[in-house]
Amino acid sequence: MRTRAAVAVEAGKPLEIMEVELDGPRKGEVLVEIKATGLCHTDEFTRSGDDPEGIFPAILGHEGAGVVIEVGEGVTTLEVGDHVIPLYTPECRECEYCLNPKTNLCQKVRSTQGQGLLPDGTTRFKMLDGTPIHHYMGCSTFANHTVVPEIALAKIRKDAPFDKVCYIGCGVTTGIGAVINTAKVEIGSRAVVFGLGGIGLNVLQGLRLAGCDQIVGVDLNDDKIEMAEHFGMTDFVNPSKVEGDLVAHLVELTKGGADYTFDATGNVNVMRTALECAHKGWGESIIIGVAPAGAEISTRPFQLVTGRVWRGTAFGGAKGRTDVPKIVDWYMDGKIEIDPMITHKLTLDEINHGFDLMHEGKSIRAVVEF
Amino acid sequence: MRTRAAVAVEAGKPLEIMEVELDGPRKGEVLVEIKATGLCHTDEFTRSGDDPEGIFPAILGHEGAGVVIEVGEGVTTLEVGDHVIPLYTPECRECEYCLNPKTNLCQKVRSTQGQGLLPDGTTRFKMLDGTPIHHYMGCSTFANHTVVPEIALAKIRKDAPFDKVCYIGCGVTTGIGAVINTAKVEIGSRAVVFGLGGIGLNVLQGLRLAGCDQIVGVDLNDDKIEMAEHFGMTDFVNPSKVEGDLVAHLVELTKGGADYTFDATGNVNVMRTALECAHKGWGESIIIGVAPAGAEISTRPFQLVTGRVWRGTAFGGAKGRTDVPKIVDWYMDGKIEIDPMITHKLTLDEINHGFDLMHEGKSIRAVVEF
Ligand SMILES: [Zn+2]
Ligand SMILES: [Zn+2]
Ligand SMILES: [Zn+2]
Ligand SMILES: [Zn+2]
Repeated sequence: MRTRAAVAVEAGKPLEIMEVELDGPRKGEVLVEIKATGLCHTDEFTRSGDDPEGIFPAILGHEGAGVVIEVGEGVTTLEVGDHVIPLYTPECRECEYCLNPKTNLCQKVRSTQGQGLLPDGTTRFKMLDGTPIHHYMGCSTFANHTVVPEIALAKIRKDAPFDKVCYIGCGVTTGIGAVINTAKVEIGSRAVVFGLGGIGLNVLQGLRLAGCDQIVGVDLNDDKIEMAEHFGMTDFVNPSKVEGDLVAHLVELTKGGADYTFDATGNVNVMRTALECAHKGWGESIIIGVAPAGAEISTRPFQLVTGRVWRGTAFGGAKGRTDVPKIVDWYMDGKIEIDPMITHKLTLDEINHGFDLMHEGKSIRAVVEF
Repeated sequence: MRTRAAVAVEAGKPLEIMEVELDGPRKGEVLVEIKATGLCHTDEFTRSGDDPEGIFPAILGHEGAGVVIEVGEGVTTLEVGDHVIPLYTPECRECEYCLNPKTNLCQKVRSTQGQGLLPDGTTRFKMLDGTPIHHYMGCSTFANHTVVPEIALAKIRKDAPFDKVCYIGCGVTTGIGAVINTAKVEIGSRAVVFGLGGIGLNVLQGLRLAGCDQIVGVDLNDDKIEMAEHFGMTDFVNPSKVEGDLVAHLVELTKGGADYTFDATGNVNVMRTALECAHKGWGESIIIGVAPAGAEISTRPFQLVTGRVWRGTAFGGAKGRTDVPKIVDWYMDGKIEIDPMITHKLTLDEINHGFDLMHEGKSIRAVVEF
């Protein structure tokens, strides 16, 4: 079949909107009509050429939601008409990782996914001249139709709006999951969140959901205060306005250090601050942000010997097919909010403008609707 | 009263054996006759002058066992004749830390202990000329008699031999506790232990007690193999004999990385190796060793984002009054061994020879008997 897609033809170039050829789903695969997709910094990281592992040409996009159009041979858990969210972290439910409750890093299709291919080692997309186009993060949601492995699709309720729940395919789950799955924050905890962008806001609402007593937000930009308070922040700290040591300031503010701290900046110096303002004896610090290639975190081992714990999280520790439908329910039940974070709606033809908005800091999330 | 003690008169000097004056126990304090005490690297760290926080003159020693001779006003949990092990990490059972199951770092007497004083801000020891002598780690077991806060004494069974269980006051609990309390190692785990000195041997036997399937020991000295195997090591790796990358070698040996790794070297480069050979998705690395002042650990945040956890431990995460008596029981029941680790017995007059043995690498533990 033919479908319309935004193709990353070459590193650093704007995406090109074009008709592409899409083969039907093979064994264990599903054809999905994408209804909406968010634009994420990770897409931009690859589009820009900064990602050393970027492969071109490719159809980017990994925050989608849509409808099953056709299922391949052997697909048993999905049928035509099901609503789904593609998962860049799949859940096969049979690999060593899926069977271990401590991790969500399913390895079933990892090597082919990293090469921009489906599990059988081929691509379903090609240009009209026959040039193969690579998949991206196993999702490729910047296309009106895409083919995804069955194990990389979360089945969701049919009354959930695509243009909102698509964000659950990445930032919402990453932020809320970091709180609930990775940190396992307890009621009454004190927490500090570094970086109040989209991920940070979702960490805030995860902390509120978990019943925290104090939720401190840290950001260099005072413009973030209003939205952050809307999502649960109780105290704001702008490091540029703190006299003296930021760690000491945060330890005092949290009455001895935070029970949990979260880095959503990707800055390795901030990651160190986040660890060191965690409470002696039991404070845990969770790294969510992605650091530049080669950057390293460091601290004195004394920080750990006196009881602080350093962790990281990917996709919020969520096992996607199991957890994503629950988060969709939380949204539909009003336990969490997404609407205020979807700041811009675009058509596929306007997708490059979405990256401009991202660079200008004007959007939390821009969503393309098909 | 007068008692005999080995006094650290000045940084870097040998200990001086002398008669000293010891005041009786005040409110909440207990007078203990020390029957045996181990010599630890931590004592030597202070004696040598390397410890920037060392205070002189002081009576060092923190691995003791003895008998209660007199109790001060208000002491309710101990009586004359009780056998006890002094605790450099006390357990008051009422501070914020004691009431938190995640930590053992009781803060009740921390500030005075750090100043070489008892909780009321004074010292019980003085020289015969009246010069005050400081306490050390709240224990000062290099004296035939010492005064210790009630909250810093674990009451143990009376049939346990002092010259063996004194080691439970430090290395045994630190190593075994790191496995059981801090890492919470599960049956069937694979583990790697870096450094096969006294602490490392106790980590090994902790891992064996916890039912590990594979226990890899890493040390530059092949002479450690025999004793390490005796304490449970199943595989030995000498990094100087590994061709290529040590992390890759250990990951392969443990079939994907270890579930738990332990640094018992105090070397920050080893700490990094320990983290990075932990299993993707769930491997945890525990820092036990004490690094030189100012030394820092570092790694790429990717190591944590892909699921590894970095922790530390002090006194094996043990709440001493509760856990130390249990470890004494384990020793008496034959669940753990201590005897082969007590390699040398000395009199108090021979105590400086014990530090020589330590430097020469000839002892695992030298114990002074009174
Ligand atoms: Zn994303
Ligand atoms: Zn899996
Ligand atoms: Zn010791
Ligand atoms: Zn306490």
